[in-house]
Amino acid sequence: MTKNKKVNAAILIIGNEILSGRTQDTNTSTLATWLNSIGVKINEVRVIPDVKKIIVETLNTLRKSNNYVFTTGGIGPTHDDITAASVSEAFNIKYEIHKEAFKILEAYYEPGEFNEGRQKMVWMPANAELILNPTSGAPGFSVENVFCLPGVPSILKSMLGGLKNRIVGGEPILSHSINLRTVESEIANSLTKVQDQNKDVDIGSYPFFRQGKLGVSIVLRSVDQSKINNCNSEILDFVKEKKIEIVEID
Amino acid sequence: MTKNKKVNAAILIIGNEILSGRTQDTNTSTLATWLNSIGVKINEVRVIPDVKKIIVETLNTLRKSNNYVFTTGGIGPTHDDITAASVSEAFNIKYEIHKEAFKILEAYYEPGEFNEGRQKMVWMPANAELILNPTSGAPGFSVENVFCLPGVPSILKSMLGGLKNRIVGGEPILSHSINLRTVESEIANSLTKVQDQNKDVDIGSYPFFRQGKLGVSIVLRSVDQSKINNCNSEILDFVKEKKIEIVEID
Repeated sequence: MTKNKKVNAAILIIGNEILSGRTQDTNTSTLATWLNSIGVKINEVRVIPDVKKIIVETLNTLRKSNNYVFTTGGIGPTHDDITAASVSEAFNIKYEIHKEAFKILEAYYEPGEFNEGRQKMVWMPANAELILNPTSGAPGFSVENVFCLPGVPSILKSMLGGLKNRIVGGEPILSHSINLRTVESEIANSLTKVQDQNKDVDIGSYPFFRQGKLGVSIVLRSVDQSKINNCNSEILDFVKEKKIEIVEID
Repeated sequence: MTKNKKVNAAILIIGNEILSGRTQDTNTSTLATWLNSIGVKINEVRVIPDVKKIIVETLNTLRKSNNYVFTTGGIGPTHDDITAASVSEAFNIKYEIHKEAFKILEAYYEPGEFNEGRQKMVWMPANAELILNPTSGAPGFSVENVFCLPGVPSILKSMLGGLKNRIVGGEPILSHSINLRTVESEIANSLTKVQDQNKDVDIGSYPFFRQGKLGVSIVLRSVDQSKINNCNSEILDFVKEKKIEIVEID
C-alpha cells in the first residue's frame, strides 16, 4: 500500500448503554483523532445494540466497504458481551478458546483466580490476532480488517499503541484552524466562494461560545499543505476586508 | 397509536467534525435519554459526513426502518450546512424559502441584519413543519417522520420541549440499577442464568471505577415493572449468597 492511497475506516460502537443514553460514548472521538493522525479517514460511525444478528449484519456491511473496521465494546466476561461470537459468525470462523490469550490471562491472574467467568474472555474467532491490553490483561483481537477493542475508554486508549504497526494509513490528513470573532452568517457567502474555488480542501465552519464571546472556527482539511495554505490566504483576504478580528490561528 | 406499541427511532449525526475527532458528540446521549424517557427506543445511531449523496441515502434507509429519525447538524448558514437540501432530495420535495421561518427570523434580527447568509437558514423542504428555537431564532423542521435539529448541543437541548407533543412514544422503558462492589467475572455466570430466565428484561453489566474502587453496575431495562422486580430479586439472591457488597440501588 503506497502512501498516496486513500485509506478509510468505519467505527462500530456496540452497546445498549450508548443507545439508552446511560453512557456518553467517547471512544469515537479517541479513535477518530488517532486514526486521522495516521492517515485513516473515518467514513462513518454506527452505534448498535448487543444483538448478535445486528452485529453480524452490520459488520459484514462495513468490513466490505471500508479498509478497516474498529469495534468497541462487548468483549468482557458477561452474557451481554457477544462481540467475539458475532465476529466469528460474520467471518464464518470457529468460535473457540484462543490458546495465546488463555496463557496471557492465566499468567495475569493469581493462581485459582482465572475462573470460568474470566475464561469467557479468551473465546475468540479461531486464529484471531491478539491486541495486547497493558491495563487489565484481557486482549482484544483482529480478524482480517476488523479490529475489536473494549468499551472502557481508558483501557481502549492504552491498547492503541500496540496497534500502530498493524494499521497502514494513507497520506496524513492535515488540518488548519482559523478562529474568528464573528458569526457564521457574516462570512457564509465569502466562505462558499473559497470552497467553490478549492474543491480539494474540506472547509468546515463551526460556531463557538467561549469566555462569554461568540466566534466561528473555520477548519481546513486536506492531504496537501499547499492547498491548505492557498485556501488560508483567500480566507484571510476576506477577513481583512471585512475587518473581522482573528482570535487564533493554528 | 396505542401505548402498547413499541416505538423506535434512529439518530443521524451529520458532521465532518465528529468524524475527524475534532468535536465530541454529546447530542446522541441527550436525544437518547430524552427519547427513552418518552417511550421511544433507539435502534441505531449513525454518524456521517457532510456529503449530500450519503445524507440522502442514509435518510432514505433509516426513515423506512424506524418510526422516527432525528438528525443533528447541518442546518446553519454556511456552505457545509446541507441537511435541509438533502432532506428535500430524500423526500423529493421542493427546496424553497419557508415563509413562516422567514417571518420568524426577519422579526428576530435587527432591521437590516437579516442578510443573505442568514436567509439561507429559511430554505427548507416545502411545507416542512417548524421546530421552534428559543435560543437563537433559526428553527429546525420536520418532514413526515424525520426531525432535523441543530448540531450545537445547548441549542438542540432548548428545542426538545417544543417537540414533546409531536413525538408519540410507546410504553416507557423502565430502568433499574444495582451497583455492586465486585468484578464482572465474579457474577458473570449467575447473571447469565438470571438473563436466561428473564428474556423480557434487558440486563446490562458495566464495570466502573469510582473513588479508587472497582465495581459493576447491573442495569435492568424493561417496559414491565413486575419483570424488573422479579429479576432484581433473583440478582439480590445471588449477591447475598456470594456476600457481595451492595454500593447503591436506584
